[in-house]
Amino acid sequence: MENLIQLKLKKIRKRMQEEKIDAWLVLSSDYHNSEYVGQYFKCREYISGFTGSAGSILIFQDEAGLWTDGRYFLQAEKELEGSGIRLFRNGEDHVPELEEYLAEKLQKQSLFGVDGRTISISAYRKLKKKLNRKQIGIRLDADLVGDIWQERPKMSCQPVWELELCYAGVSRKEKIELIRTKMHREGADYTIISSLEDIAWTLNIRGNDIACTPVAISYLIIEKTNVLWFVQMEAVDHSLQKKLNGDGIILHNYHEISNFLLEKKDDQTLYLDPDRTNMSIYQMLTKRKDVYREILEGKNLTLVEKAVKNKTEIQNMRLAHIKDAVACIKFIYWLKKQVNGNPENQKDLQQGTAMHIREEGRRTGWVTEISAAEKLEEFRAAQKHYLGPSFDTIVGYAHHGAIVHYHALPETDLPLKAENLVLIDSGGHYLEGTTDITRTIALGKLTREQKHCYTLVLKGNLRLAAAKFRYGCTGIGLDCLARQALWKEGMDYEHGTGHGVGYLLSVHEGPNSFRRMVSGGREECMKLEPGMITSDEPGVYLPGKFGIRLENLIVCTELEKNEFGRFLGFETLTLVPFERDAILVEELEAWEKEWLNRYHADIIKKVGKYLETDELSWLKEVTAEI
Amino acid sequence: MENLIQLKLKKIRKRMQEEKIDAWLVLSSDYHNSEYVGQYFKCREYISGFTGSAGSILIFQDEAGLWTDGRYFLQAEKELEGSGIRLFRNGEDHVPELEEYLAEKLQKQSLFGVDGRTISISAYRKLKKKLNRKQIGIRLDADLVGDIWQERPKMSCQPVWELELCYAGVSRKEKIELIRTKMHREGADYTIISSLEDIAWTLNIRGNDIACTPVAISYLIIEKTNVLWFVQMEAVDHSLQKKLNGDGIILHNYHEISNFLLEKKDDQTLYLDPDRTNMSIYQMLTKRKDVYREILEGKNLTLVEKAVKNKTEIQNMRLAHIKDAVACIKFIYWLKKQVNGNPENQKDLQQGTAMHIREEGRRTGWVTEISAAEKLEEFRAAQKHYLGPSFDTIVGYAHHGAIVHYHALPETDLPLKAENLVLIDSGGHYLEGTTDITRTIALGKLTREQKHCYTLVLKGNLRLAAAKFRYGCTGIGLDCLARQALWKEGMDYEHGTGHGVGYLLSVHEGPNSFRRMVSGGREECMKLEPGMITSDEPGVYLPGKFGIRLENLIVCTELEKNEFGRFLGFETLTLVPFERDAILVEELEAWEKEWLNRYHADIIKKVGKYLETDELSWLKEVTAEI
Repeated sequence: MENLIQLKLKKIRKRMQEEKIDAWLVLSSDYHNSEYVGQYFKCREYISGFTGSAGSILIFQDEAGLWTDGRYFLQAEKELEGSGIRLFRNGEDHVPELEEYLAEKLQKQSLFGVDGRTISISAYRKLKKKLNRKQIGIRLDADLVGDIWQERPKMSCQPVWELELCYAGVSRKEKIELIRTKMHREGADYTIISSLEDIAWTLNIRGNDIACTPVAISYLIIEKTNVLWFVQMEAVDHSLQKKLNGDGIILHNYHEISNFLLEKKDDQTLYLDPDRTNMSIYQMLTKRKDVYREILEGKNLTLVEKAVKNKTEIQNMRLAHIKDAVACIKFIYWLKKQVNGNPENQKDLQQGTAMHIREEGRRTGWVTEISAAEKLEEFRAAQKHYLGPSFDTIVGYAHHGAIVHYHALPETDLPLKAENLVLIDSGGHYLEGTTDITRTIALGKLTREQKHCYTLVLKGNLRLAAAKFRYGCTGIGLDCLARQALWKEGMDYEHGTGHGVGYLLSVHEGPNSFRRMVSGGREECMKLEPGMITSDEPGVYLPGKFGIRLENLIVCTELEKNEFGRFLGFETLTLVPFERDAILVEELEAWEKEWLNRYHADIIKKVGKYLETDELSWLKEVTAEI
Repeated sequence: MENLIQLKLKKIRKRMQEEKIDAWLVLSSDYHNSEYVGQYFKCREYISGFTGSAGSILIFQDEAGLWTDGRYFLQAEKELEGSGIRLFRNGEDHVPELEEYLAEKLQKQSLFGVDGRTISISAYRKLKKKLNRKQIGIRLDADLVGDIWQERPKMSCQPVWELELCYAGVSRKEKIELIRTKMHREGADYTIISSLEDIAWTLNIRGNDIACTPVAISYLIIEKTNVLWFVQMEAVDHSLQKKLNGDGIILHNYHEISNFLLEKKDDQTLYLDPDRTNMSIYQMLTKRKDVYREILEGKNLTLVEKAVKNKTEIQNMRLAHIKDAVACIKFIYWLKKQVNGNPENQKDLQQGTAMHIREEGRRTGWVTEISAAEKLEEFRAAQKHYLGPSFDTIVGYAHHGAIVHYHALPETDLPLKAENLVLIDSGGHYLEGTTDITRTIALGKLTREQKHCYTLVLKGNLRLAAAKFRYGCTGIGLDCLARQALWKEGMDYEHGTGHGVGYLLSVHEGPNSFRRMVSGGREECMKLEPGMITSDEPGVYLPGKFGIRLENLIVCTELEKNEFGRFLGFETLTLVPFERDAILVEELEAWEKEWLNRYHADIIKKVGKYLETDELSWLKEVTAEI
């Protein structure tokens, strides 16, 4: 019996035969290489049933494979069940890379294809290099999933709105001038920007075309005198259009970009980012043999400017973090009271089947992973200028906490008992900026192992947050500070220590990050600059038992400049207490205790006034000096 | 009045006019991109008088400039005096890079030149990119310094000798097979290796054509069935030739490489390292339009294999370090006795001029920087299988210690008084391997500042040496461990924390290193592998006062593999005590004291038996538990 996915694959394979294509690749990208994509772009999910944010499907006549990373192994296994699609676990020993597998399997001079709008120039080149040796052809002008997708959703076209100067800090005119200065330095006459966050940042606009990322689908071209914005015109109201025109920005319809590039008859020098520009755009730029156009390549000229937050943005981010702290602290107080105060939550759940327990739990009003997430969202929604979550909340109770990117589904949703740990990773967008916080909360008496692990992760968090370092360091250079305490005991975590965070843009933003390994991108090697905001989120995961992650956002700051050089450090933005009951105080160094006490005192000072009396007195209790 | 350098520049400029060359570049490389070069290749020194190991001279009709790095600023200032050559301090603010300056200054369509044999493919491309915009031509087929250098030394042609299997650990046949496996994996039919250390490693041969680096000038081509070695035939005696032939290696004369490449009519795929292959070779490979030859580029296929020492090499390196420790400990004992025991050394030197002091010092038999270096060499030379220094010894007394690459000259040579610190950085080649050690020795009572600085540097050294880390880390990821204690107090050092060390090859060897910043090379991003030997040498330098550097060699080792991953650590090879009197014990953490005591006990155990009674009893005293 064939399931739905098998039927879809059959249709695709028929199309492949018609087009004489021997292998078809379906990527998870939209046309702008966004991390998350709108419904319209979910071809990979449509064809495979796999819903993770990262993963590629490669389809041959006789087999199909999904390549994804460690975050999604469990989820993919489950979602691919019965589809006949083979799972390739990226990064595991003896698992071939997609490019390698493709080149190995295809015959000499066969034909490979992928929708050119969904593959970046860089990714295309990597593929092409592998395929060249066997003289394999590449088709970029088809969309086979689109061809068979009958009820495909429309491309999102949500209203675009303006981010006022009191939030953005720098006007779009100044930003455009800055980009022009950089263009001049690079010897470029114009630049094309395809990444949606960079466009939103440049124009001080926001949208709602992608879940959790308030951006608008569009392309931006900045020339020496003109600025051209290719956007769905229906999404921009008349008054904003007028305002943008007033700032020298000419609006064109989104789909006109092709004709514009094909008809552009310049002999000028263009600058673009091959990691963020798709191959269809590149083909339009290089198609005409009668036009000489020099193309300079590098990171988007907006990349570092966007990452280095200006004074207004940093001040706003501090405010956003106070609001977010109010919501989180209210939530933690509520959760603890709820779980510990409800006699039903104390009951032994070991009787009955898992499904029975969950049903029983819901019936008696227990807090569950899903209901906890909903409650947290309620607390955030009560804050002024709250716009929505910056990513899908993770609530992982007990052994679910050990699944790094766990997402509770109705059929896995656990009730929270008055024991063990619950890991909650969540964040919000406010007009004042974006938050991302993980706390691991004790719901009852903890074991010594749980406390010891919590303390090691806490040490990692504090050591990175308290770092003082020379200007010139990268996140790779500091990452070990967060892992050292764990490494010493033969433990570690399988994810980066931190990612850059956008201002009311993507919660994952480059070039700054803290990571253990250089995975190839040059941007990982960029220096940390004062004003960059990055997450600091070490963790430890004991499969089948529990998971711990402690995440604050930290902003890079200037410390001192002397005859030895310029020294930088971090200011911690997140203002939510760590779990007192989970810390083995005797394992902390003196400075770590001082740091913690100072941090907790700071929380009382900045957040205390926004809490109810009972909340505040609880907060004072759990943040008393240790 | 013109000096000698000005006369030489005049001659060069005349040649430039004859050749219609507007700018001529003189690099410090030989034809193999070696770090140090033989006398024959010292064109840059000949034309400028600058003797540093790194630096490039750019000559125009109206000016000439030397670009060099921080190690050589003081030396270059001195040596360029009166030459009219301008010093460009690389890395300082507002100092243009050579390529930039050249492109800026030259007119459109002018002509630039450099000896193509002395510039790597990568360096050439970097230059060409800059010059392209102004359509500046490049001549690679001249050697203008060679043209005017009348008494140029002959190219070195020292005897080549075989490194026996008991030292090399792996036979040349196995190594060649390994390279062929890698060639196959890369899709290459043959590879050309130009770097002399990689050739010596592959063939298990050593030579003596370059000071401090026991290699032989040659090129190596490994094909699927043949191995061709282009070497000065006179340097290889008959029995070795026969032996090599027996292993399938065909010898050709060094200079035949050009004809061989020009005449080679293959349609094969070649693999080469653009960083270690010169442009003349590249031109020969790409000159013939009737030959289709695909060129794959990447790091030499020998790079990682050479860096990851085999079991025999590691075991030998341990032996070499015992011998080296015997020499160093004998020397330190001798030095302390000499300086502290000689009443002349106790005298106040403040009376009289610096020159007077030095003369007086030599007359009365004081130890000076130069004589100390000679004495240390004597102790090393007394060890079995000692072949010579692995680099020029640095002895920097008091404020000279603060000059990172100080090299004592007769006119700067300070006598060592019974006060302050002396920094001694030295190393040797033994059949059992190569050493590199820095100790900073107290010659009298130290100030609290000196002790505090020493303790901070020691902490850095120990923290890196004691690191436990996940497989996958790079040296960039661990570097901060060595700097953290200094950074905390707003101090740092302007050099890398460590470099890879070859086995009886170059004392500076990639890809492993510990550095603060990614300076562009991909090899810096390579993982640390068990068996790699790297130096661990933090320091701190107080100009005008003193310098401290503490350097051990450490070999990367396997620690444990568990459910969290594979953990690595280091074994310290160097076995010479740290300076007890310079350590503020109260500033050490408990584990640091334990580490130090264990290290010192290990020295007694391994080295003690090779010392005289008085030396041993002194050693026991200075290594007693703290």
